[in-house]
Amino acid sequence: MRVLIIGATGLLGKEIVRLLSPNHQVIGASRHGPDLSVDLTDKASIVSMYQQLGTVDAVICAAGAAKFAPLESLTDEDFAFSLANKLMGQVNLVRCSVGHVTQGGSLTLTSGILAQHPMAGSAAVSIVNAGVEAFGRSAALELKGKARVNVVSPGWVSETLAAMGQARSAGVPAAAVALAYRRSLVEDITGEVIQVAKW
Amino acid sequence: MRVLIIGATGLLGKEIVRLLSPNHQVIGASRHGPDLSVDLTDKASIVSMYQQLGTVDAVICAAGAAKFAPLESLTDEDFAFSLANKLMGQVNLVRCSVGHVTQGGSLTLTSGILAQHPMAGSAAVSIVNAGVEAFGRSAALELKGKARVNVVSPGWVSETLAAMGQARSAGVPAAAVALAYRRSLVEDITGEVIQVAKW
Ligand SMILES: NC(=O)c1ccc[n+]([C@@H]2O[C@H](COP(=O)([O-])OP(=O)(O)OC[C@H]3O[C@@H](n4cnc5c(N)ncnc54)[C@H](OP(=O)(O)O)[C@@H]3O)[C@@H](O)[C@H]2O)c1
Ligand SMILES: NC(=O)c1ccc[n+]([C@@H]2O[C@H](COP(=O)([O-])OP(=O)(O)OC[C@H]3O[C@@H](n4cnc5c(N)ncnc54)[C@H](OP(=O)(O)O)[C@@H]3O)[C@@H](O)[C@H]2O)c1
Repeated sequence: MRVLIIGATGLLGKEIVRLLSPNHQVIGASRHGPDLSVDLTDKASIVSMYQQLGTVDAVICAAGAAKFAPLESLTDEDFAFSLANKLMGQVNLVRCSVGHVTQGGSLTLTSGILAQHPMAGSAAVSIVNAGVEAFGRSAALELKGKARVNVVSPGWVSETLAAMGQARSAGVPAAAVALAYRRSLVEDITGEVIQVAKW
Repeated sequence: MRVLIIGATGLLGKEIVRLLSPNHQVIGASRHGPDLSVDLTDKASIVSMYQQLGTVDAVICAAGAAKFAPLESLTDEDFAFSLANKLMGQVNLVRCSVGHVTQGGSLTLTSGILAQHPMAGSAAVSIVNAGVEAFGRSAALELKGKARVNVVSPGWVSETLAAMGQARSAGVPAAAVALAYRRSLVEDITGEVIQVAKW
């Protein structure tokens, strides 16, 4: 399959590329390449990416930022940034993908465990992650027959915990999270939120 | 208790006012009164409402709109309207309520069944409802000791179904939904999403 991966240079994206490359034609995109340039927060840049790209069999998005900070210090701009980036960036990716994905092709978005299990500081992130999941379920319904839509919800990733000086063992290795994206790609599922927590 | 009800003139708001008025001092607000004027989509108007109002023991929000339309006809403006109205309107209400609610006071927001159970046309509504629920859980954590935060998630309301020419019996009467708002007010609960489906 011809698979577009947005955020291909990121921690999760790199593992997804590594996992899928042996069996699929992978096209990596993000603001700074590698194969194509796209800024999810700019809908025109998504449209222009598809003009260059034509049709793909699947799209995986492992990109999107939201502001983590205590509720009482989150500003109007922090909420606006978070909604425009990880939420509407992925919503617009799905909207723009219609017509550029082969019939029954797979669209996979990324949320995160804070959707259901908030912690102090996660208000904006939790809104965004829950919004992505609800959108994934809705879009799956409406695009039935055209495209499948699933959401991968990673728990804390080991490498990220290690980078924050915390125990790697409390998280899920990025390579294990990548398997969830492959499930969405190859299994005949739609409208699912695939939770990848520590097992 | 001194209870501020936003959306007091609406279908649900009226029933909440009717239920609480015998035992509480109810202050009704919405864009057009009755007691106070506020536009949830305008944060400055929320701030100005609290300047007039001072401190309350509880706030109930039964207002907030989001656009219901097929995914492929939802415009950028429809998404922006929905996020700014029912989602960020209620988020900003909570942010502005801090300092204006007595300690341990209750804040109650409104989502809806489409958060978890989408239907064709609900993409924007589902995002917003799920976002409100995730925000309620997060805010409850962060405001612990200051205020309780819960979300009421109504199923289809009988009166609304009847107005759409559908079977009233498939829904929950508005008066029954009002009981969920009273639970959030009088029970010692926080971080809950109270689902009110047909029983
Ligand atoms: N790591 C975790 O513990 C964890 C846990 C739960 C959920 N998640 C979610 O998983 C996703 C990926 O996380 P990660 O840790 O792999 O992130 P990461 O290492 O920071 O990688 C982010 C990737 O996205 C690209 N990107 C950033 N902004 C973009 C934009 N506006 N448009 C297009 N591409 C953009 C980056 O490349 P460029 O800089 O070139 O654009 C990069 O390839 C995020 O949504 C994150 O919230 C992560
Ligand atoms: N009815 C249902 O079947 C159902 C099911 C699930 C969820 N819900 C949710 O429950 C909530 C209330 O629904 P409802 O059926 O009672 O609605 P409704 O009858 O249309 O009443 C809306 C109320 O909100 C006020 N309002 C509207 N926009 C406002 C704004 N920008 N700022 C402040 N107040 C505003 C209105 O008064 P003004 O015009 O004076 O502002 C009115 O008091 C909504 O969030 C709705 O999505 C309803």
